[in-house]
Amino acid sequence: MNKHAIYHIKEAPYTYGIGEKTLALRLRAAKGDLKSCKIYYKDRYDWKTEFEVKELELVNTSNLFDYYECRIEVEEKRFRYFFELEDNDESICYLNERGLVTERPEEPNAFQFPYLCLADIYDEVNWAQEGIIYQIFPDRFCNGDKSNDPDGTLPWGEEVTEKTMFGGDIQGIINKVNYLKDLGVTMIYMTPIFMSKSNHKYDTKSYYEVDPHFGDNEKLRELIKRCHDAGIKVILDAVFNHSGKDFFAFEDVIDKGKKSKYKDWYFINSYPVDTEKVNYITFADNVANMPKLNTKNSKVKKYLLKIAKYWIEEIGIDGWRLDVCDEVDHVFWREFKKTVKKANKDAFIIGEIAHESGSFLKGDQLDSIMNYPFRECCLDFFARRNITAEELDHILAENRSSYMNSVNRQLLNLIDSHDTPRFLTECEDDKEKMKLAIVLQYTYIGVPYIYYGDEIGLAGGKDPECRRCMIWEEDKQDKELLDFYKKMNIMRKKYKTLVYGEYTNVYKKEMVLGFVRKHKDEEVLILINNSDDSFNYVTDIKGTVFNIFEEEEEIVDGRIELNPMSFKALKIK
Amino acid sequence: MNKHAIYHIKEAPYTYGIGEKTLALRLRAAKGDLKSCKIYYKDRYDWKTEFEVKELELVNTSNLFDYYECRIEVEEKRFRYFFELEDNDESICYLNERGLVTERPEEPNAFQFPYLCLADIYDEVNWAQEGIIYQIFPDRFCNGDKSNDPDGTLPWGEEVTEKTMFGGDIQGIINKVNYLKDLGVTMIYMTPIFMSKSNHKYDTKSYYEVDPHFGDNEKLRELIKRCHDAGIKVILDAVFNHSGKDFFAFEDVIDKGKKSKYKDWYFINSYPVDTEKVNYITFADNVANMPKLNTKNSKVKKYLLKIAKYWIEEIGIDGWRLDVCDEVDHVFWREFKKTVKKANKDAFIIGEIAHESGSFLKGDQLDSIMNYPFRECCLDFFARRNITAEELDHILAENRSSYMNSVNRQLLNLIDSHDTPRFLTECEDDKEKMKLAIVLQYTYIGVPYIYYGDEIGLAGGKDPECRRCMIWEEDKQDKELLDFYKKMNIMRKKYKTLVYGEYTNVYKKEMVLGFVRKHKDEEVLILINNSDDSFNYVTDIKGTVFNIFEEEEEIVDGRIELNPMSFKALKIK
Repeated sequence: MNKHAIYHIKEAPYTYGIGEKTLALRLRAAKGDLKSCKIYYKDRYDWKTEFEVKELELVNTSNLFDYYECRIEVEEKRFRYFFELEDNDESICYLNERGLVTERPEEPNAFQFPYLCLADIYDEVNWAQEGIIYQIFPDRFCNGDKSNDPDGTLPWGEEVTEKTMFGGDIQGIINKVNYLKDLGVTMIYMTPIFMSKSNHKYDTKSYYEVDPHFGDNEKLRELIKRCHDAGIKVILDAVFNHSGKDFFAFEDVIDKGKKSKYKDWYFINSYPVDTEKVNYITFADNVANMPKLNTKNSKVKKYLLKIAKYWIEEIGIDGWRLDVCDEVDHVFWREFKKTVKKANKDAFIIGEIAHESGSFLKGDQLDSIMNYPFRECCLDFFARRNITAEELDHILAENRSSYMNSVNRQLLNLIDSHDTPRFLTECEDDKEKMKLAIVLQYTYIGVPYIYYGDEIGLAGGKDPECRRCMIWEEDKQDKELLDFYKKMNIMRKKYKTLVYGEYTNVYKKEMVLGFVRKHKDEEVLILINNSDDSFNYVTDIKGTVFNIFEEEEEIVDGRIELNPMSFKALKIK
Repeated sequence: MNKHAIYHIKEAPYTYGIGEKTLALRLRAAKGDLKSCKIYYKDRYDWKTEFEVKELELVNTSNLFDYYECRIEVEEKRFRYFFELEDNDESICYLNERGLVTERPEEPNAFQFPYLCLADIYDEVNWAQEGIIYQIFPDRFCNGDKSNDPDGTLPWGEEVTEKTMFGGDIQGIINKVNYLKDLGVTMIYMTPIFMSKSNHKYDTKSYYEVDPHFGDNEKLRELIKRCHDAGIKVILDAVFNHSGKDFFAFEDVIDKGKKSKYKDWYFINSYPVDTEKVNYITFADNVANMPKLNTKNSKVKKYLLKIAKYWIEEIGIDGWRLDVCDEVDHVFWREFKKTVKKANKDAFIIGEIAHESGSFLKGDQLDSIMNYPFRECCLDFFARRNITAEELDHILAENRSSYMNSVNRQLLNLIDSHDTPRFLTECEDDKEKMKLAIVLQYTYIGVPYIYYGDEIGLAGGKDPECRRCMIWEEDKQDKELLDFYKKMNIMRKKYKTLVYGEYTNVYKKEMVLGFVRKHKDEEVLILINNSDDSFNYVTDIKGTVFNIFEEEEEIVDGRIELNPMSFKALKIK
């Protein structure tokens, strides 16, 4: 047995409660090493009856590891357990609190999960899991009210630079609610809309007012009402890592220096504050107009948490996307979660974290992150073709194994955003490549994500090019791509197996990926042929299956034909 | 390279801040597999300059794994890093966010520790690390005031049963403060002293009153004053998992059933509450007089946190030991920590957790636990002799690798308590065995722990036998053992290397364990010969060393002789 590979800890994502009496467990072993993996478990105060025994299921395989999972239930909520591992040479080891032993462990060394406390069970956000998210960069989406355009607003569609303004606003989004409903998305996430001088508004002047060039708080309330009526939830962007330099507190520090009562709201290195020399800590690399907020300061904390609550309770938003989330402390996010869920227990909390985020996603802080690692491997497989289907599958397996299953269903699987080049541009405008990446978004575990304009073929390299104006002239829109997205949305919403189903790889050679999503009695087979050759998938399926994308029956007789750069999504059970 | 063994995550205890700009990192590899382990690191927004490079140090070795550590500093507090691993075949791998790769990783895949937030840095409790703790079971320690003895108090020293009372009280402890000072301990932990009918008082009737048979709140204040004057801190036992059944809230539920406003303070299965049938959740296995408290209920939380604060602010205690800590939710303990540290930032929080406790010891909840796994391996090595020195060393190495180094220095390394048989009894009264276990307690990483009476040779099997009355007649005390403890305390307090020093094993064959503790320029060599044969330790030390236990010089000439069942603690630098 490869003993070095065996891993299990009593913490999420390896151990966590998923019901009042039910514990989800995960165990890692070397790939292909185990013949069987069993758990022996019982009430931890029970010294009389025998252990219950259950077989764990192999759920994920990466390049190095196999991941096994099971759920166990103990009436008294107090668990004692150990694992019995048998490898292919029929050698048996037991894993307990002291590690691997060859003899069945004595009771005192069993793992103990002392008590499954309700307060520690993570409440997943089902509406988000079942949804499709649409990201809007308000200045570039739609100009619905020319009267509030900022000075120097350029004609819609002109070339973008870092500073250009195009007059997009909330009225514009309201005008397009029907478009969004027709497209089929169920939530919109807007980059910041609070008062700020920049076009992106990540340098907040006031956290309580919608920027007048976008509208006002009433206009936002109207948008939310219209969206809710259309079955669309609304997520705002909370920029709590830093404020703008014209935020009242920072202005006070500029004015009064050391004497300002707000000086500990920031990290000032010397006085007077100098926005040229930038003698204070900022977002990123000395970005003068984004001074970093001191979220350890209880006054700052109180101020920001009140904002978090205000927009939920008073204006009715459905969640927050947290800018630069990973540069703010865990202590703050724990309190943030408590505040937000108290205001609305169904609110959805998304962190902007581009990297592995285990320490934020144990259930006590965020519900989700923007899953940039998903984008990375889509780029590699679909756009750049520099990894194989097998490598893709392995990367996805490791990604899934980093989090609880409930969290995996909530990750925002984006292929681009306002901070990256457009995926179409990454594909060098080869739409067929992009479509296959979209197929993966819509058939894989996690929330499909559309960055405004992707659906009509908007292109653009890195910022500011990826923030071009939305194209509304129908003759300039890629209607075929738009229809493709619409059909994807219909499929995703109709087949909950795509949301809740387990993922099982069934094929991963060269550029062809095949997997089954299975939920309850339903099974959907996804085949993605990301190559320029046609491909025949050999199967033991014989008979009629249902193509859930095309919504038509197909007859399969032991093989499924795929054209070059094509896919199938077939309900096989 | 054994790729399956390589492990590193961006969470404690593998990654954590230890200073404003300093990150502590840990990496696991297969034992003996690596020739070198380097880290490449820099500011995560720095795309211009080269990575800094640093070699990690091999600090722990268990039966399967080697653990490497290093500290890195980045001025801007934002870290980007990856590891370069070279094995003994000179094959090189790189570890980054995507796992192990054979080519030096591209920038986007480096690990990112986005920002070292001050709020997330764990503040270690140095006074506790430098201390020696003494546990008192008040009813059995000393009867200082016969006027408050409960009815049916037995003569001191009679046979103990589950129900017997002996009249020990706070005045008794006050009378013995000089004894404790003379013994050399620096903190006392008393099992519960709040109002309750039982002798152990784990079934609390009132959390605000010292039990009248023990004294009153003023008497406790007096004890604390006397202790503080003697340089001794005082820790109380917080029983927040459950109350007594005569606690006002539970009595109200018994009286008023469903209509009680306290019904959600507990977990009642049916009404009326029946303390015979026990139709409610309790501590352990249906212990009728210990109904489990619902710590998810905000009113319960508020009530208990107020108590936590009260005894610190109003009475001046120095910390809490938390009974059945692991059956209460993490959410509660996070708030508990916040409350307690706000009341006294130096307060010490100890959880009663008998098992691996990683999920409680990341810095956001507890400072320490009662380190029962330490007792387990002392039992195995010293009392039962069923593991070798090598196995002992490996178990200790795994134990250390489960926590941050600051936490390791705070763990309470007990060999017995009121919940276990006395260690002397486990040794079948072979005092020499026990003395060697004490040597390990005092020379290893973590806080030495004396359970009242151990120091004078009090014996006793499992509860209630381990709770016998303290022996105060000097002729019945084991004075030799008492002197041994006193000398240990003097040594431990004098040589801070025993507190702060790194642990490096230098010998582990059969029943002989040798290790060096190193701190700054000081090095102490510990040799423990747990066998019935004499042993010669061969060394390249030649010259005069200082025996820090005997406080005398010794001359070493390439070998150190150890009698059967003996030890040496030698300052070699």
